[in-house]
Amino acid sequence: MEMKNYFHMNDGNGELSYSQNSSVQARVWLMNQSLLENAIQSLITSKDSGLNIADLGCGVGNVPLGLVSFLVEIMQKKSKELLKLDNNDDQVPQLQIYMNDLPSNDFNSLFKEMMNLDVLKKKDDDGVPLCFLMGAPGSYYDRLFPNKSLHLVHANYSLHWLSKVPPRIYDDQRMSINKGNIYISETSPAKVGRIYRDQFEQDFTLFLKSRSKEVIANGCMLLTLRGRPSSTNPLTWTTFEFKIFTKTLASLVSEGLIKEEKLDTFDFPCYCATKEQLESIAKKEGSFEVETSKTMVVDVAPEIEDKWERAQVITKIIRAFSESLVSSHFGEDISTLLYDKLVHFANQHLVDDQLAQNHAVTVLLRKK
Amino acid sequence: MEMKNYFHMNDGNGELSYSQNSSVQARVWLMNQSLLENAIQSLITSKDSGLNIADLGCGVGNVPLGLVSFLVEIMQKKSKELLKLDNNDDQVPQLQIYMNDLPSNDFNSLFKEMMNLDVLKKKDDDGVPLCFLMGAPGSYYDRLFPNKSLHLVHANYSLHWLSKVPPRIYDDQRMSINKGNIYISETSPAKVGRIYRDQFEQDFTLFLKSRSKEVIANGCMLLTLRGRPSSTNPLTWTTFEFKIFTKTLASLVSEGLIKEEKLDTFDFPCYCATKEQLESIAKKEGSFEVETSKTMVVDVAPEIEDKWERAQVITKIIRAFSESLVSSHFGEDISTLLYDKLVHFANQHLVDDQLAQNHAVTVLLRKK
Repeated sequence: MEMKNYFHMNDGNGELSYSQNSSVQARVWLMNQSLLENAIQSLITSKDSGLNIADLGCGVGNVPLGLVSFLVEIMQKKSKELLKLDNNDDQVPQLQIYMNDLPSNDFNSLFKEMMNLDVLKKKDDDGVPLCFLMGAPGSYYDRLFPNKSLHLVHANYSLHWLSKVPPRIYDDQRMSINKGNIYISETSPAKVGRIYRDQFEQDFTLFLKSRSKEVIANGCMLLTLRGRPSSTNPLTWTTFEFKIFTKTLASLVSEGLIKEEKLDTFDFPCYCATKEQLESIAKKEGSFEVETSKTMVVDVAPEIEDKWERAQVITKIIRAFSESLVSSHFGEDISTLLYDKLVHFANQHLVDDQLAQNHAVTVLLRKK
Repeated sequence: MEMKNYFHMNDGNGELSYSQNSSVQARVWLMNQSLLENAIQSLITSKDSGLNIADLGCGVGNVPLGLVSFLVEIMQKKSKELLKLDNNDDQVPQLQIYMNDLPSNDFNSLFKEMMNLDVLKKKDDDGVPLCFLMGAPGSYYDRLFPNKSLHLVHANYSLHWLSKVPPRIYDDQRMSINKGNIYISETSPAKVGRIYRDQFEQDFTLFLKSRSKEVIANGCMLLTLRGRPSSTNPLTWTTFEFKIFTKTLASLVSEGLIKEEKLDTFDFPCYCATKEQLESIAKKEGSFEVETSKTMVVDVAPEIEDKWERAQVITKIIRAFSESLVSSHFGEDISTLLYDKLVHFANQHLVDDQLAQNHAVTVLLRKK
């Protein structure tokens, strides 16, 4: 089955939902608010009559809700400025926001929560809503919008997800050349790192090509991805989550709860790039100018002092983004057991005084 | 709770889903295909670069799926004609379809089913999809789209649903002045018919006003509603479904399974208008020209000879559109019992040789 038919952040609003477990994504998003505000300011001129914004890989919950509220507030502020300059209603820009994700995303929850947002109920003096909200189901590695229809593209913590596990990770017998691992690791053959890199380059290029048709000249893209510090070794560097995930799976194999060949055919369809890699791919593709790039570091659940409690929260955060992949590969029955065990390895990681950090990379691109 | 937070056609794809029980809506839609095709033909000129179409109150299942397939095929046919005239790719119009319904609609099912449609996977020679599909959650009695953003509005079997039960149906003590009934009936006081009519006029006017801002000049609206034959008495005429529904509820009250005051506070938020009423409201509102209007009659499940079997199918069709209203008012527990009993009254209706028919009214409006 194609990844786009089952991959999604955890549904709903419960204890294990993505909505309740996306604090890292929310914090990274907050760190980029001023970049987003400046990008919007650069796009609204007194001549404009509308602004079409797409949030790609929006997911559900607090992050997309916060984004929409923020965008409406910025537009409201800007509209007031424009009205002061010239008392002509036609010059108040209308805002249209397209929330994109795979059709397997929980759009039902997203729409219900969005429609209860106060900002989406707000209307101008003529009774026109300040924001028109749309859903745009589909993969951002395909075309999603008509030609020259978008002013701004926003993607927060989504583009590190590849279109698929790189096929070259598997040999002719469908066995992984990265045995015992689920991503690039210190024990991976060197070519695993290169295979992942190639898949990312191919996917990110495809993404840029698709958007280059859809974004108007001088339009912007603010893209934030799970990433990697610039100085690290691309052939061995991995995230702390994948380290403890690998240990968890190995432990389940040794207990006979998961078959070894099942582990050997499981690999995460994601890639952590550096900001230099993003810049280089964007330059090579050629449709967009790189205006800004940066790397950020975020501790995961640093406010929780108790290590065991923090390990539980870390596990829920991991579960919220990985469970649909785990369930579709290993079966739904093993899922709870797997994440219960993951808490122990997360706790051990903290007890060993190792860091629990996320690295994010951001690029602000402008369409030539 | 506001109706827009709970009202929806039945979810999913199962035996009781709207998807499996919308044969009447599908047949009425088929009867209007040529009107739709002609409307599209009138909107595409060689100068156009795109066509934005909104389907309002789309629901889920075969009807919206059939509509999207049909629209893409028409556009494909038209594109080929344009390409023959002038071999310039820019003149192939891009199609964008907005599927609208209340946020309580099952958009998750809709998107998943849509994305598996062959027509939505089709691409032109440049790899551009033939159709961009969007979701537009919200009430069509509010503004849904930016100014002058739509070329064609389509609504099939949705606009007879009112924005709410007319408040004047209830007295100061929240008791219905239409006791024992759930809609206009032969035993209703005359003012009940007028109250329902006024609510419909108010809602349909609001609908036209909202769309008048969104539809471009010369843009079209093809609207098909559950309706009423022109010659019938507006103060007493009712549908056969409401007749048997009323008998069912009365029977449950007499058995003590539903409290009388619960029945007395239940009324359907819908109205069956004549084509003359639609024309008259459109003329009064003034933004659109009436190009066509007609009344159609459709037998419900006429292919089933056995009366009991036909009664079961009729009940499922009624259940698919009414269950969310019934469950939210009477509670989910009573729902299955109620519809099991409804089968008996539907069967009796057929045994008594009474007609089981739907009347639909269509207007084709063009923006001045």
